[in-house]
Amino acid sequence: MGKISTMTVDVDWGDCDPAGLLLAPRTHHWMDSAADHFFSGCGLPAWRELQRTRGIVGLTPIEQHARYVRPAACGDRLRITTEVMQWLPDAVVQRHVATRGDELIFECVETLAFVAHDPADPPHVRVVPVPEDIRLLCS
Amino acid sequence: MGKISTMTVDVDWGDCDPAGLLLAPRTHHWMDSAADHFFSGCGLPAWRELQRTRGIVGLTPIEQHARYVRPAACGDRLRITTEVMQWLPDAVVQRHVATRGDELIFECVETLAFVAHDPADPPHVRVVPVPEDIRLLCS
Amino acid sequence: MGKISTMTVDVDWGDCDPAGLLLAPRTHHWMDSAADHFFSGCGLPAWRELQRTRGIVGLTPIEQHARYVRPAACGDRLRITTEVMQWLPDAVVQRHVATRGDELIFECVETLAFVAHDPADPPHVRVVPVPEDIRLLCS
Amino acid sequence: MGKISTMTVDVDWGDCDPAGLLLAPRTHHWMDSAADHFFSGCGLPAWRELQRTRGIVGLTPIEQHARYVRPAACGDRLRITTEVMQWLPDAVVQRHVATRGDELIFECVETLAFVAHDPADPPHVRVVPVPEDIRLLCS
Repeated sequence: MGKISTMTVDVDWGDCDPAGLLLAPRTHHWMDSAADHFFSGCGLPAWRELQRTRGIVGLTPIEQHARYVRPAACGDRLRITTEVMQWLPDAVVQRHVATRGDELIFECVETLAFVAHDPADPPHVRVVPVPEDIRLLCS
Repeated sequence: MGKISTMTVDVDWGDCDPAGLLLAPRTHHWMDSAADHFFSGCGLPAWRELQRTRGIVGLTPIEQHARYVRPAACGDRLRITTEVMQWLPDAVVQRHVATRGDELIFECVETLAFVAHDPADPPHVRVVPVPEDIRLLCS
Repeated sequence: MGKISTMTVDVDWGDCDPAGLLLAPRTHHWMDSAADHFFSGCGLPAWRELQRTRGIVGLTPIEQHARYVRPAACGDRLRITTEVMQWLPDAVVQRHVATRGDELIFECVETLAFVAHDPADPPHVRVVPVPEDIRLLCS
Repeated sequence: MGKISTMTVDVDWGDCDPAGLLLAPRTHHWMDSAADHFFSGCGLPAWRELQRTRGIVGLTPIEQHARYVRPAACGDRLRITTEVMQWLPDAVVQRHVATRGDELIFECVETLAFVAHDPADPPHVRVVPVPEDIRLLCS
C-alpha cells in the first residue's frame, strides 16, 4: 500500500454555477492542490527548491480522466483522497477521490509528468524522467 | 457532418502557473465556455430562458477525458474547436480540440447531461433526457 | 465589538502566477469564501434557503478597496479574518485582513448588497434593504 | 492623451454565481488580462523576455479600488477599456472601465508595481523602479 493524503474543501458560493452546482474547473483546481499536498506530505521539497537544486520546475498533466458521479452544491463539505496508482518512467499516475460523507462525488485519474526548462531554449519545458529518489520518497 | 464551433483564447499571465505553463483548470474553464458557444451558436436559447420554459437549469459534466499533448505558455493564442461526437438518450458527448497554429495542444472528450431542479426537492437536480428538439437543433 | 470569523488558506501552485506570486483573482475568490463563512458562522441560513423563504438570491459587491502589502507565494499559509465595519440601509461593509504569521499580506474593505430577483423581470436582480433580523444576527 | 487598449469578453456560464451574476474574482482575472493586453499592445516584450534581459518577473498589484455599478449576467458581452492614469516612481496607476453597450458595469483603478527576484534571496521578489524606457513606450 502506498502513501495517501486527504484534504477537506468547502464548496462555496464562488465555486458554483447558475444552476447552483459545483463547477468542473474548480474540481480541477482542487485536484491540483490535492497533488501538491500529497507530494509535500511525502516530504518533497517546495518546487522553487527543486528548481534551484535540480532544475525541475513542476508537474504538468499529460492525461486526465474524471467521472462526476453525484452533483455537489454550495454548502457541501468534500473530502479528497489522493494516492499514486502507478509510477511510469516519465510520469506518475494519481487518483483523486472526492466524497461527501459516504457518497462518492467525483473521481479523477491523472497522469502527471515532471518538467524542466529546456537548457537550449529556457522559457520552454521538456519532460524529465521521474527521479528515482522522488519515486521512493513518495511511494 | 455535425455542427462545429470555434473560439479563440489568449493564454494570459493569470492563466499560467509558476513554471510559466497554462494551468489545467483554465483549460476546463475554456471548455465550459466552448460548450456554451457551441450551443448558443446552434440557436439554443439562454439557460435562464430554458429554465423558465422547460425547467432545464444547465448542463453538468458526467465524464471528461483530457489529453495534454504540448504545453502552452503565456502569450500563446489557441483555437478551440468543438463538436458533438454522439447523442445518448441522457447525455451529449462533445469533443474540444485546442491548437496553436498547426500544433495540437490539448483535446478533451466530455459527456454532459442536461439537468433540472427536482420538483420534490427544489435545490437539488436530476438528469433529464436530452430533449429531441435540442438534439435536432444542435446536430 | 462585532462578530469575527477566521479562515485558513494554503497558497498552492495553482494560485500563483509565472512570477511565483499569489494571483489577485485568487485573493478575491478567498474573500468571497470568507464572507460566506462569516455569515454562515453567524447562523445565516444557506442562500438557497433564503431564496425560498425571502427571495434573496445572494450578496453582490458594490465596491472593493484592496491593499496588497507583502507578496505571498506558493507554500504560504494565510489566515483571513473577516468582520463587519458598518451596516448601511442597503449594504454591509466588511473588512478582510490576511496575515502570514505576524505579517500583514493584504486587506480589503468590501461593500456588499443583498439582491433579489426582480419580480417584474425574473432573471434580473435588484438591491434590497438589509433585513433587520439579518443585521441583528450578524452584528 | 495616453494610450488606450480595449478587450471584449463574454460573460459565460462558468463566470457566474448561483444568483446568475458575474463573479467578482472573474472581473479581476479579466483586468489582469486587460493589463497584459495594454502593455503588449504598447510594444512591451513578453515577461519571459523581460525576465531574461532585465530580471523583471512581472507586475504585482499594490492597491485596487473597484466599483460595481450594474450587475452583469450570463450572455452579456462586455468591453473593457484600459489606460494609464499616472506613472509613479515605483508603480503605474491603471484604470479599467467595463461597459455593456452604453451602460457602465464596473470600473477599477489599480496600482501595479514591477517586481524582480531578489538576488540575495532568489525566490522572493522586490519592487523595482519603473524603467524609464517602459514608461515612455507605454505613455
